[in-house]
Amino acid sequence: MSYQTIRVEASTGYDIHIGRDILSQLPAFIRPLLGECRLAVLTDSTVDELYGDKLIDILTSAGYAADKFVIPAGEASKCADNLLEFLNFLADCRLTRSDAIVAFGGGVVGDMAGLSAALYLRGVKYIQVPTTLLAAVDSSVGGKTAIDIPAGKNLVGAFYQPRLVCCDTALMDTLSPEIYRDGCAEVIKYGVILDAGLYAALRETPFNRENVVARCVQIKRDVVQQDEFDNGIRGLLNFGHTFGHAIEKLSNFTVSHGSAVAKGMLIAARFAPLCGLGNITTDLAALLECYGFDLSCRYSAEELYDAMLSDKKRRGGNITLVLPRTIGHCELVTLPIEEFHDKLKQIID
Amino acid sequence: MSYQTIRVEASTGYDIHIGRDILSQLPAFIRPLLGECRLAVLTDSTVDELYGDKLIDILTSAGYAADKFVIPAGEASKCADNLLEFLNFLADCRLTRSDAIVAFGGGVVGDMAGLSAALYLRGVKYIQVPTTLLAAVDSSVGGKTAIDIPAGKNLVGAFYQPRLVCCDTALMDTLSPEIYRDGCAEVIKYGVILDAGLYAALRETPFNRENVVARCVQIKRDVVQQDEFDNGIRGLLNFGHTFGHAIEKLSNFTVSHGSAVAKGMLIAARFAPLCGLGNITTDLAALLECYGFDLSCRYSAEELYDAMLSDKKRRGGNITLVLPRTIGHCELVTLPIEEFHDKLKQIID
Repeated sequence: MSYQTIRVEASTGYDIHIGRDILSQLPAFIRPLLGECRLAVLTDSTVDELYGDKLIDILTSAGYAADKFVIPAGEASKCADNLLEFLNFLADCRLTRSDAIVAFGGGVVGDMAGLSAALYLRGVKYIQVPTTLLAAVDSSVGGKTAIDIPAGKNLVGAFYQPRLVCCDTALMDTLSPEIYRDGCAEVIKYGVILDAGLYAALRETPFNRENVVARCVQIKRDVVQQDEFDNGIRGLLNFGHTFGHAIEKLSNFTVSHGSAVAKGMLIAARFAPLCGLGNITTDLAALLECYGFDLSCRYSAEELYDAMLSDKKRRGGNITLVLPRTIGHCELVTLPIEEFHDKLKQIID
Repeated sequence: MSYQTIRVEASTGYDIHIGRDILSQLPAFIRPLLGECRLAVLTDSTVDELYGDKLIDILTSAGYAADKFVIPAGEASKCADNLLEFLNFLADCRLTRSDAIVAFGGGVVGDMAGLSAALYLRGVKYIQVPTTLLAAVDSSVGGKTAIDIPAGKNLVGAFYQPRLVCCDTALMDTLSPEIYRDGCAEVIKYGVILDAGLYAALRETPFNRENVVARCVQIKRDVVQQDEFDNGIRGLLNFGHTFGHAIEKLSNFTVSHGSAVAKGMLIAARFAPLCGLGNITTDLAALLECYGFDLSCRYSAEELYDAMLSDKKRRGGNITLVLPRTIGHCELVTLPIEEFHDKLKQIID
């Protein structure tokens, strides 16, 4: 069993370990960070059924007291009610500032656990154990946590770094093709925004999972280290997301995050030439289709525009978009809202 | 009209302005921090009735767009439901990261506004305009924010600094004697923990409000600058609070924060000799009585112990108390829980 380790130097430094079958090593990874302590594991119903007992066994066999809290699988769980219930659970377990939270699941679990860790007692440690490709390459790294509120997705959250990320790629073997594809959208995103070599490698499927995850994590690490609090270059990671979030919202979250990002990336690619950037539309559409993405968008320019207006990426009377110049190079482009509105109508009818 | 300015250099630096009738200067204070923007004012029903229109007039006359959200006065409002409702309100107002929140009220409003600012879009600016003595000398300074959850008081929160504190001491003229006295408990606390001179000055009532507020804020500033994230000396500010929070909780919050802290300080003073520290009990009891505090405690050692066990200040199997050596000098004392339990039974029957 081998694994790769990537070190992140953010406001809190931490290691990301990536490898096949490394879950059993989790206690060895935790030991240097935390002495004898209590671990509160947050997971979802799907992961719990497959791997819940295994993780608790691994932790308790190594001498950790471990409590488990299970939320229903799915984005709908990323809500204030569950957050509050979990926070009360932590208090009922009498978790102290010397203890830690373990996020065992995909992005929803990671966000909920991370935000809970940020808030409980004004901050306790947490550990990410991502079980989906999407969480492995995206949400488990970088410390962005959030929940959805009625007014919108991810509107309430915190920047709060984990102390450790342990990514066992074997856990992804049991992902459904749809959930695995969700992660592929983010992987393709990394290629488009910053790495033409990665993008080229993705033309051959299936890709080498460990190496691709490690490469994506390196890219994200490099971006986060430059801009932890999302005031500049970190915005590049939103490629496809400003449109994607609007599509998720308009679909009442029946369109998955990855599918929405795929559609959003294509809209951004079509938008780019209108702003004097390059046109990668044909190339990107071909790659996305090769991964099985449905690239249709059933929403009008007006619907997208309205859904995007409440998006938090908007500042004052402008909107900032991530647009590709070429494969491997994207730019942040800020437009007055009116100009954005006009251009959007040109590409979406 | 004159005012004093105290500068805090925490992770975010900010000014605290203290003076009589300085509310009208708020726009002038805000201007250098925020350009044209939207301000979301959080206040409570009592403050709103007295000063709500006045504040909105001051802000809008100066060219700021101002929205107001009113919560019922009282500690019961410091809950997750109100927090979430306010966060949704911010989204409905389409507040962006360039805008800011204004906390106009006492500690409850300040905590709710501060935590909302920490969470909304993962962080927007906020401004404290404390209207009670308690908030002026305590919660408006230092960036500790929290809400209460069923499992306990202040268990969920964040460290998040305001960008400005504007303390108009004239607003305190309308406080009821009980609410004003709540603040006096915190003022006396500062004297006991760090400033015998302040303590001596408090023997003459009424004290000079502006000077006493400024002195307390300086003390708190000095402590916060040394230990923003509450890992050491900031614990001194909890003098009377570990016992006080237990009393508040046991009374189902019918005992006010200040009254509970007064009772808690006296218990701590009685506890100190058992740990080899000094005995200021008689002196402290006399000063607290002179301010009208009821110093009786209707709870048994067992009840207090149990209520304190879930308190977040406990680390592992120990509990840390703030105990006085002399007037003006307190120390953090960490005891095994069992020893604490035994000693508590000696002083409370």
